[in-house]
Amino acid sequence: MELLVQMGKNAVEAKYELQMLSENRKNRALYTAAQALMNESGQIIAENEKDIKRGGEKGMHPGLLDRLRLTPERIAGMAEGLKQVAELPDPIGEVLETMERPNGLKIEKRRVPMGVIGIIYESRPNVTADAFGLCFKSGNVVILKGGSDAICSNIAITKVIQHALREEGITEHAIQLIESTDRAVATEFMRLKEYVDLLIPRGGAGLIRSVVENSTIPVIETGTGNCHIYVDEAADLEKAVPIIINAKTQRIGVCNACESLVIHEAVEDKLLPLLAMALKEHQVEIRGDEKVQQVIDCVPATEEDYGTEYLDYIISMKVVSSVEEAIAHINRYNTRHSEAIITEDKENAEKFLNGVDAACVYVNASTRFTDGFEFGFGAEIGISTQKLHARGPMGLRELTSYKYRIVGNGQIR
Amino acid sequence: MELLVQMGKNAVEAKYELQMLSENRKNRALYTAAQALMNESGQIIAENEKDIKRGGEKGMHPGLLDRLRLTPERIAGMAEGLKQVAELPDPIGEVLETMERPNGLKIEKRRVPMGVIGIIYESRPNVTADAFGLCFKSGNVVILKGGSDAICSNIAITKVIQHALREEGITEHAIQLIESTDRAVATEFMRLKEYVDLLIPRGGAGLIRSVVENSTIPVIETGTGNCHIYVDEAADLEKAVPIIINAKTQRIGVCNACESLVIHEAVEDKLLPLLAMALKEHQVEIRGDEKVQQVIDCVPATEEDYGTEYLDYIISMKVVSSVEEAIAHINRYNTRHSEAIITEDKENAEKFLNGVDAACVYVNASTRFTDGFEFGFGAEIGISTQKLHARGPMGLRELTSYKYRIVGNGQIR
Repeated sequence: MELLVQMGKNAVEAKYELQMLSENRKNRALYTAAQALMNESGQIIAENEKDIKRGGEKGMHPGLLDRLRLTPERIAGMAEGLKQVAELPDPIGEVLETMERPNGLKIEKRRVPMGVIGIIYESRPNVTADAFGLCFKSGNVVILKGGSDAICSNIAITKVIQHALREEGITEHAIQLIESTDRAVATEFMRLKEYVDLLIPRGGAGLIRSVVENSTIPVIETGTGNCHIYVDEAADLEKAVPIIINAKTQRIGVCNACESLVIHEAVEDKLLPLLAMALKEHQVEIRGDEKVQQVIDCVPATEEDYGTEYLDYIISMKVVSSVEEAIAHINRYNTRHSEAIITEDKENAEKFLNGVDAACVYVNASTRFTDGFEFGFGAEIGISTQKLHARGPMGLRELTSYKYRIVGNGQIR
Repeated sequence: MELLVQMGKNAVEAKYELQMLSENRKNRALYTAAQALMNESGQIIAENEKDIKRGGEKGMHPGLLDRLRLTPERIAGMAEGLKQVAELPDPIGEVLETMERPNGLKIEKRRVPMGVIGIIYESRPNVTADAFGLCFKSGNVVILKGGSDAICSNIAITKVIQHALREEGITEHAIQLIESTDRAVATEFMRLKEYVDLLIPRGGAGLIRSVVENSTIPVIETGTGNCHIYVDEAADLEKAVPIIINAKTQRIGVCNACESLVIHEAVEDKLLPLLAMALKEHQVEIRGDEKVQQVIDCVPATEEDYGTEYLDYIISMKVVSSVEEAIAHINRYNTRHSEAIITEDKENAEKFLNGVDAACVYVNASTRFTDGFEFGFGAEIGISTQKLHARGPMGLRELTSYKYRIVGNGQIR
């Protein structure tokens, strides 16, 4: 705990330095850090080997081992990411609003950094550099707590970045890594409210639940997506099938993948055989309600299926008799992430856009577009599924707060 | 717990109705509720008498008893408040941003209600009507948990409003009051995350701490203000004295009152005798550091004084030798609420505006202006002292979230 408090104090000291850095100095430091990652890639890979070896001995799943592995190409990708963030406009200092009051007070609402951001994440070590880049460009100090599987890699990456910052005459406490892999330390970190302004968990549902349960720091929940596509009675089925196949199969393990279909009864007879064939080609298992079972061969869907984010080659299906029933079903089971309607009917589209409670609601497009890059933000720290502060893809602006600056000449009440 | 879950379910059902209400219907309902409060004021006062009687028997402090008491004038004030909220522009539906992506996707960021807002508050029963008005106008359902001292008054006010809503054909679940005064129920309420989108505590530091510790619902912290005024070496003392007297004494029990002075050593000899005299007239006790003690008669200040929000006729004072030292002192002890510098030097003003970490930073004006009405918001649900989502005075807009509406014609990734 003492060590954590010291890190908190370091971070608070650093935040006053970072919030005053000019855009030029921040960008130069990002380029220097990118170059340093390239220069030190041999050493980073050597440290990564230790994590890979330990993971292999523990019998880690090959997919996870692959996510954990750093190669020269992946390190080049991390460096490229930092350079791309340097190219994005600096959000800090933007004047969001000005007001002059009848008593002569001039009020200016100006964008400022959040301050100190904590990020708790799981196995992929590239998050270490990515999260630093976004926090740093938006004037924030970051304290990172990575997974134990990637600890040697994370330490190596952090040291390289800290060294680059020192070279640029900037406090190395702009990035700090909690090196302990003890779970109790993670829980203590979540209660470091005195020093940390915002905590963002990046990882599976279990990690996010644990952060929400334990944190006294304000949290932004990210990333669980039980996303639906509703095929309306007025759907163009030539649009519906490719969108569904894309949203389900283009990448199955991501939060904006489609997990569940809702189908209007007027189109089920035509759509289901087409879909069954296309999904079969991609080895996707269908779990359908009774009406779906009457039309195609599938596994019976249970109540639990509707509430499950599979992240796998499985999709649930339910037949409804109106757009209202579809909206009610989606609002009951979704995780407020991304939801789509396929329809040529403007009125039904409008009902869906208004009625569905989610960060991103789509008409005739794949849910896979919920992404900071696809939205043109140039970067992304995660997808928020809560309503407080930020919703949907979070880029640089979503890592900022604001402050009111009020100038008077002696006003009193 | 079962009752709370039922209230949560009612609220979620109501939120889909409220988010679709037109501005006209919302305004008409607010006027009807205002009229109903006036019509039923006799009955509300009769119920309030029960709370007053119980409070008197318990030996409640006369100041608190006064806050608890409802009179025809105070009920007229509540009704007037609802009418004023009806006159404010409806924030819902505002298009915050539109983007067209190279792939043809049209993205629109649109303001939507938060959904279900929970408010936990202490003794003043008028909060029941005020909080309803702001939440309702911004399309939100509200679940209220008032203090046990005001329970009969709160139940009476809620019933009158619910009856008015029914008359207007609007769900009465737009406002629900938790009638249990059991503290365990309050704690359970803070964990009703499945149904409640935002929890706002309104009350003393103890209540706010308890909510932050126990809530799994996202929270906006409000209202603790250990506010400072720094008198710079370049201060115009003719501005300084009235501002300090105003900020300290105009209303002592409020969060934007000044609790502590920081004084540049170059002006202490001139300022302190003037101040001591003016503060004495208002019966304000001065607690000063050693340098202050050398110039005027005062109580020695302890470390604890600097961290204390007195809400009383007491002020602490510390002498510093630079604006940088003043900023560091304030950032160490303040509660991120409202901070002021008195100076004629633009450079020092700029250093202070940038360097002090607070929702509202002032040059040459009283901290008492941190207030939704003074800012021109027309209303206020509280003053946020956190950085996530909203900072400073919170009006209607601060009770909203946003949603991305994306329209395509078959786009896939």
